[in-house]
Amino acid sequence: MITMVILGGGNVAQHIAKAFATSTEVQVVQMYNRKGVSFQSIPVTQNLSDLVEADIYLLAVSDDAIEDIAHQIPHAQPLVVHTSGSVSIEALSSHKRRGVMYPLQTFSKDRSLDYSTIPWCLEANNNSDYQLLEYITKSISTSFYSIDSEKRKKLHLAAVFVCNFVNHLYQMGYEITEENDIPFDILQPLIQETAAKVTQGTPREMQTGPAKRNDQKTMQKHLEMLALPEKKEIYQILSNAIAQTHGRKEL
Amino acid sequence: MITMVILGGGNVAQHIAKAFATSTEVQVVQMYNRKGVSFQSIPVTQNLSDLVEADIYLLAVSDDAIEDIAHQIPHAQPLVVHTSGSVSIEALSSHKRRGVMYPLQTFSKDRSLDYSTIPWCLEANNNSDYQLLEYITKSISTSFYSIDSEKRKKLHLAAVFVCNFVNHLYQMGYEITEENDIPFDILQPLIQETAAKVTQGTPREMQTGPAKRNDQKTMQKHLEMLALPEKKEIYQILSNAIAQTHGRKEL
Repeated sequence: MITMVILGGGNVAQHIAKAFATSTEVQVVQMYNRKGVSFQSIPVTQNLSDLVEADIYLLAVSDDAIEDIAHQIPHAQPLVVHTSGSVSIEALSSHKRRGVMYPLQTFSKDRSLDYSTIPWCLEANNNSDYQLLEYITKSISTSFYSIDSEKRKKLHLAAVFVCNFVNHLYQMGYEITEENDIPFDILQPLIQETAAKVTQGTPREMQTGPAKRNDQKTMQKHLEMLALPEKKEIYQILSNAIAQTHGRKEL
Repeated sequence: MITMVILGGGNVAQHIAKAFATSTEVQVVQMYNRKGVSFQSIPVTQNLSDLVEADIYLLAVSDDAIEDIAHQIPHAQPLVVHTSGSVSIEALSSHKRRGVMYPLQTFSKDRSLDYSTIPWCLEANNNSDYQLLEYITKSISTSFYSIDSEKRKKLHLAAVFVCNFVNHLYQMGYEITEENDIPFDILQPLIQETAAKVTQGTPREMQTGPAKRNDQKTMQKHLEMLALPEKKEIYQILSNAIAQTHGRKEL
């Protein structure tokens, strides 16, 4: 059994603890965070000086804290890994054996996930530790990729577009329905189908709507309906980006 | 049996013909379009003067063509409906009985859909025709709403945000993965989960990412990675919109 200490008290740490709770290869022997929050019966400490010995120390802390906390892990020669999309593996350079396990998913507090489908981006500074990361990842997921720090940063950027920014566009749609006394639920089948479509072809092939078909009249009417200049600007800039992608006239 | 003629040769006309093919209440007796494309064994004509008599004439043509084609439907007292999100019911004012059946979904050519879940936005200029539209809609879907022309325009605008613009953000994510030799499929679980999350709470509650947590360092790194000024601008404007929604500092 491989032993692991999880450092961090946020959503990611909680979800990772929950994912490894089902693993027959890994035992989470301790959690560390300042608030003292744990998962199920895993022992928790609020002091880095009380860390127990383990094979792997996994940091699910904020990007800025990675280097500092890694530096304070006292035990000799453990494998220290972080879980960040945008931080280089070199942030762990105070340790001889270092790695990254970046789960490419959005984690919310009260939302349960199918952990077996989460893609993990793995990196280690030597081959045997890479094999170890692959071995423990396989015990919780069917999906893993070897991705170095440079590519991981790009992937994190892509994730901001397809997740964080997409969610804000959902919010903009939500606000329009709310202001007009329309139930937001009426948009759900469209939201789900738009996401489902890109499993079947490239997003470019799946594009529909006024900007794609150069329907200037409809776009002008839409701009008039948007009262706030910030919202008009988002409408305009995204319509023009679609027009460019499809060789159409801009707004 | 209620008889219907479908006018239009695009994706929407094809999908509507396909949806009504399973209806036991409606028979599509003819299709009209300039290219002469039909669906299964439905008779097709390329001449408006050859339209047969029917209870309902359904226009699934481009917004700009609705008024003109409606005007050319020759038969006395039929119910004429269009399927557009952004055109008023009054575009059909050459007919005494007029209505709208707007399917709130994105239709692509080679993609099959579960028609029973498509929300239809219904409107008619008299109550008995509204009842008739509800009756025929129920024969193909479990989801329909009474939405007038003003609200329908707002809903169409919301649909552009949650579908067309969202799809373009998928495209931006696709381009980042392609430029860096990363398989786009690695982003699929994230895309699907981001869409699935908003069935459980408001998009505002589900927001995650650097702009939400005011992570200026990561946002600056992301801006540096985006080479094209248009892409930087989209990153900046959407990050600022998220910051505003969540009371954070702008980029």
